[in-house]
Amino acid sequence: MNAQLGKTTAPVGYFTEDNSIDAVNARMGQDVSPRLATVMACLVKHLHLFAREIELTQEEWDFGIDFLTRTGQICTQERQEFILLSDTLGLSMLVDAINNRRPEGATENTVFGPFHVNGAPVRKMGDEISFDGKGESCLFIGRVLDLDGKPVEGARIDVWSDNADGYYDVQQPDIQPKWNNRGVFITSADGHYSFVGIKPVSYPIPDDGPVGQMLGKLGRHPYRPAHMHYMVRADGFQKLVTHTFVGGDPYLTSDTVFGVKKTLVAPFERVEGGSTTWRSDFDFVLARPNETR
Amino acid sequence: MNAQLGKTTAPVGYFTEDNSIDAVNARMGQDVSPRLATVMACLVKHLHLFAREIELTQEEWDFGIDFLTRTGQICTQERQEFILLSDTLGLSMLVDAINNRRPEGATENTVFGPFHVNGAPVRKMGDEISFDGKGESCLFIGRVLDLDGKPVEGARIDVWSDNADGYYDVQQPDIQPKWNNRGVFITSADGHYSFVGIKPVSYPIPDDGPVGQMLGKLGRHPYRPAHMHYMVRADGFQKLVTHTFVGGDPYLTSDTVFGVKKTLVAPFERVEGGSTTWRSDFDFVLARPNETR
Ligand SMILES: [Fe+2]
Ligand SMILES: [Fe+2]
Repeated sequence: MNAQLGKTTAPVGYFTEDNSIDAVNARMGQDVSPRLATVMACLVKHLHLFAREIELTQEEWDFGIDFLTRTGQICTQERQEFILLSDTLGLSMLVDAINNRRPEGATENTVFGPFHVNGAPVRKMGDEISFDGKGESCLFIGRVLDLDGKPVEGARIDVWSDNADGYYDVQQPDIQPKWNNRGVFITSADGHYSFVGIKPVSYPIPDDGPVGQMLGKLGRHPYRPAHMHYMVRADGFQKLVTHTFVGGDPYLTSDTVFGVKKTLVAPFERVEGGSTTWRSDFDFVLARPNETR
Repeated sequence: MNAQLGKTTAPVGYFTEDNSIDAVNARMGQDVSPRLATVMACLVKHLHLFAREIELTQEEWDFGIDFLTRTGQICTQERQEFILLSDTLGLSMLVDAINNRRPEGATENTVFGPFHVNGAPVRKMGDEISFDGKGESCLFIGRVLDLDGKPVEGARIDVWSDNADGYYDVQQPDIQPKWNNRGVFITSADGHYSFVGIKPVSYPIPDDGPVGQMLGKLGRHPYRPAHMHYMVRADGFQKLVTHTFVGGDPYLTSDTVFGVKKTLVAPFERVEGGSTTWRSDFDFVLARPNETR
C-alpha cells in the first residue's frame, strides 16, 4: 500500500535516507482511525519532502526547533502565536477556502480571526455599536438574502471591529465601555439590517514575537487592511464568517493574513450632510447546506 | 519565477484556493536572503499541498494548533518536546542522513539525542564508566580507523549510556555519582579503545506529553532499543555521532525514533569466566571531510 494512502503491512526494514517516508508510515498500527492514518501519512510525506527538497541543514533544523518552541511559549489565554503563524503562512485562509466552497453569488467566507467574543448584546436595527466617541461614524446597511434574492428572516448578524486606534476591546480590557464596537442584529421579514459604527482602520497583528520576527526577515509588514467582521447565521443556511473590507485601503493587496477577497471589498462613501460621515452598503447572500461548489 | 525557487516579482492578485502557494510566496520582499527565501517557499508549498491533499477540516486545524501549543508549553530546560516530535516523525534521522552522507565502509551517523553532556571526564583506556553497581558489566573494545584501515591517533571518543533502569544521569540529577555511565577516551598511536560499562537497556522516550499521546493514537510504542552513544572527533576527520545497538534487542526493528542502521548493530557476547559479563567489539571508521557520497 502506498504511504500516501495510510498504513502499509509489508515490513520496510531499517530507516534510510531513501525510504524515510515509508519507514515512518509503516510504523503505524493496524487499529488507527483511517482518517488519522491518512492525515499523518500525508503530513510525514510532506515534512520529509520539504527537508529533502531543500536539503535542510542541521543548523536550520536547530533554528526550526527553537522557533516552534518560542512560538508555543509566548502563547497565553489572550495570545495565540501558532494561529498568527498559520495566518501569515496562508494556511488559515486555505483551510477556510477548502471548507467553505460556495456557488457564485453566495457571499464568500474569510478568516474568523482571534477577536470574536461570544455574548455580545443583541441591539435594535439602526443602533450604534461604537461608544468611545473616537473615529469617523459610518452607517452599515444592506440585506441578508438567499441565492434566489429572497430576504432571509431571523438571520443573526454578529458584528465586530477595531476602534479608531486599531484595537479590539478585548485587547484593551481595562478600557470601558464593554462591548465597544460589537453587537448582534436580527433581521425581520424584509431581511434588512443597518447599524452605526465607525469606519474601521487598518492595524498590525501582534508583531513583537516569533511571527513578527519572521515577517521582518521575509520583508513583510504586519498590517491588515481595515475591515468589519461579520458572522451571519440563519436556520437552514450555512454559517457565514466574513469581513467587508474598506475599499481603497492601502493594505488591500498585501493583507498580512491573506484574508481579502475581491467580492468582499465594500464601498465606503462619504455622506454629505447626513447623521454619519460614511455609509457602506453590502448585501450578504447565504447558501443552503446543499449549495456548494 | 516558480514559487519553488523563491521570490516572484509578478503580482499574483488576491489569495484564492487555487493560487494559495504563489499568493503567499509572492509576498516575500526583494531583499530576503536567498537561502531563507528558498526554505520558506518550499515550506509554504508543502504546508499547502498537505492541507489540500487531505482537505484538512477546520476541526483538524483547531486540533493541530492546540497540539503545537501544548508541545511548546511542555518544553523546559530539561525537556524538548519538539525534538521528540521531530524524532518520532523521522525528521531528525532524515536531517542527520542528508547532512552526513559517507562512503561505504565509513561508520554511519545516527541521532545525537538529548542526553549528551559536555565536560565528561577524560578517563584512561580500559577504565570503568559505570559506578552505581547496577546492570551487567560489559567490555567495549575496538579501534578507530580511517577508510584505508590505518589507526587514528588522538581520536576523542565521548561515550554515554543509560543505567540499568533505563535513565541517563541527567534524568536523575539527585542521584550520585555524577558522570555515571559517561566518559571520554583518547586513542594513542595504535587507535585502540576499550572501556568497561554496562550492557545498555532499552528505554521509553518521555511519553507523558503530546508526543506520547500521538504515539498512542498511532498504535506505536515509545521504546528505543538498547544502545551506547558515541561521539568521535579527530583532527582532519568528519565528526562522527552515532550509537552501537545491542544485537538481538526486541525493539531493533521498531526504534521509536528510527535511529537504527544495520551497520550499527553490534555483537554483544557473553564472556565465560572474564572480568565482565559481556563483551562488545566495534571499530569506528572515520571519513575525511572530502570523503562523502
Ligand atoms: Fe480583524
Ligand atoms: Fe539514548
